[in-house]
Amino acid sequence: MRFLIKFSYDGSAYAGFQTQRGLNTIQEQLENAASIVNNHQKTVIVATGRTDKGVHALCQYAHVDINVKITEKKLKRALNSNLPDDIHVIETKQVADDFHARYNVKEKEYTYKINMGEYNPLERNYVFQYNYKLDINNMKEAIKYFLGEHDFRAFVTDNKEKENCIRTITKATISEQDEIITIKFTGNGFLRYQVRNMVGILIKVGENKISPETVEKILESKDRTKAGKTAPAEGLYLSKVKY
Amino acid sequence: MRFLIKFSYDGSAYAGFQTQRGLNTIQEQLENAASIVNNHQKTVIVATGRTDKGVHALCQYAHVDINVKITEKKLKRALNSNLPDDIHVIETKQVADDFHARYNVKEKEYTYKINMGEYNPLERNYVFQYNYKLDINNMKEAIKYFLGEHDFRAFVTDNKEKENCIRTITKATISEQDEIITIKFTGNGFLRYQVRNMVGILIKVGENKISPETVEKILESKDRTKAGKTAPAEGLYLSKVKY
Repeated sequence: MRFLIKFSYDGSAYAGFQTQRGLNTIQEQLENAASIVNNHQKTVIVATGRTDKGVHALCQYAHVDINVKITEKKLKRALNSNLPDDIHVIETKQVADDFHARYNVKEKEYTYKINMGEYNPLERNYVFQYNYKLDINNMKEAIKYFLGEHDFRAFVTDNKEKENCIRTITKATISEQDEIITIKFTGNGFLRYQVRNMVGILIKVGENKISPETVEKILESKDRTKAGKTAPAEGLYLSKVKY
Repeated sequence: MRFLIKFSYDGSAYAGFQTQRGLNTIQEQLENAASIVNNHQKTVIVATGRTDKGVHALCQYAHVDINVKITEKKLKRALNSNLPDDIHVIETKQVADDFHARYNVKEKEYTYKINMGEYNPLERNYVFQYNYKLDINNMKEAIKYFLGEHDFRAFVTDNKEKENCIRTITKATISEQDEIITIKFTGNGFLRYQVRNMVGILIKVGENKISPETVEKILESKDRTKAGKTAPAEGLYLSKVKY
């Protein structure tokens, strides 16, 4: 029986989502928990996508095949009782045997948080602590250039020469509350470090170091060296997934 | 020179505010940092009040005497550079030599958060995870009985027979947003575990196990055994202090 699992995690303590030998990863924790439920057989978790070291998820999905008879409710409970307290299964749902958590994704949303105000120790792992005031109006101008279908090569870290970097962003918003800037991107898919690199350039715009229009030029240049710094992991959340 | 220090902390990793031999405490961390600034002399931090193991502070104050010449700004920076990242000095201010961070307090506010919704791993140390729906209207009825001057003996843990338990609560509110209940108490002072014991009884009211009016009877009984469970530490914050 194939199940689709909806889950959330605090990425602070992990080397990222994907299993890496000798490192603590979210995938490994989930596979261990699923294997216990699955009569201790080796069990594979196939997620919507990876998240990098320190990145969080408010809403992430994976499919898993369970060969013992179990209800959706009991599977949720069994997984949670075998997971550490920084990973949590929100929901489980039986799906068709050919359902695929990665291939069937229609849309994803990522959220990025920047704190321009005083450092708050309770949020130290959950926002990028920036400390200074950013020009949010210029950032709002700049973010529009990411909308639509583009070759995002200039915003990808470590991409292979021939990798297809064409993606579509359908929604991109910036808001501010209590000195915290929240940036949201919705799209059909995102490349490695793409969101953090887009945020990096938006911060440069917010610092008035480059004009909003420069973002369009960088995008068109397809040149990674032009796009500048990658924003840190702790401010990034996978926040929505649509099938 | 005496300085008043405003600071915040994530209490999750600490055995509480007050120095205890062999345990990691917030006071010890602050005194170590202050001592480095103070030419490595033994330096005492006198706070507004203690907080217990796992309790947080969004706004806490302490006074400290520094015998080297230093500006307010530099003291803030020097303390923060010698503090771990879960304790943060927000502001420093030079005060009169007889100013006392505990005796001069006029009012304190404590905040308590209860999550009735799905467990969120990112907030695991910052809310009491309750999981079920509480009757917030009944809780709003009940909280009124705490307002005014009362002998809070029934809501104190480990009190001494002769301790004065008379305190005044000037404001007590309950609100709900996104399935998180926020309870705030403002008063001239609070006894050990008083807030968590008051929250404990409000939860019982919210569960419809006792009527709102029973809270008044328990208060009048001055009998600790009647008041029931202490709410857990992770939901509690010292949130305001007024001098």
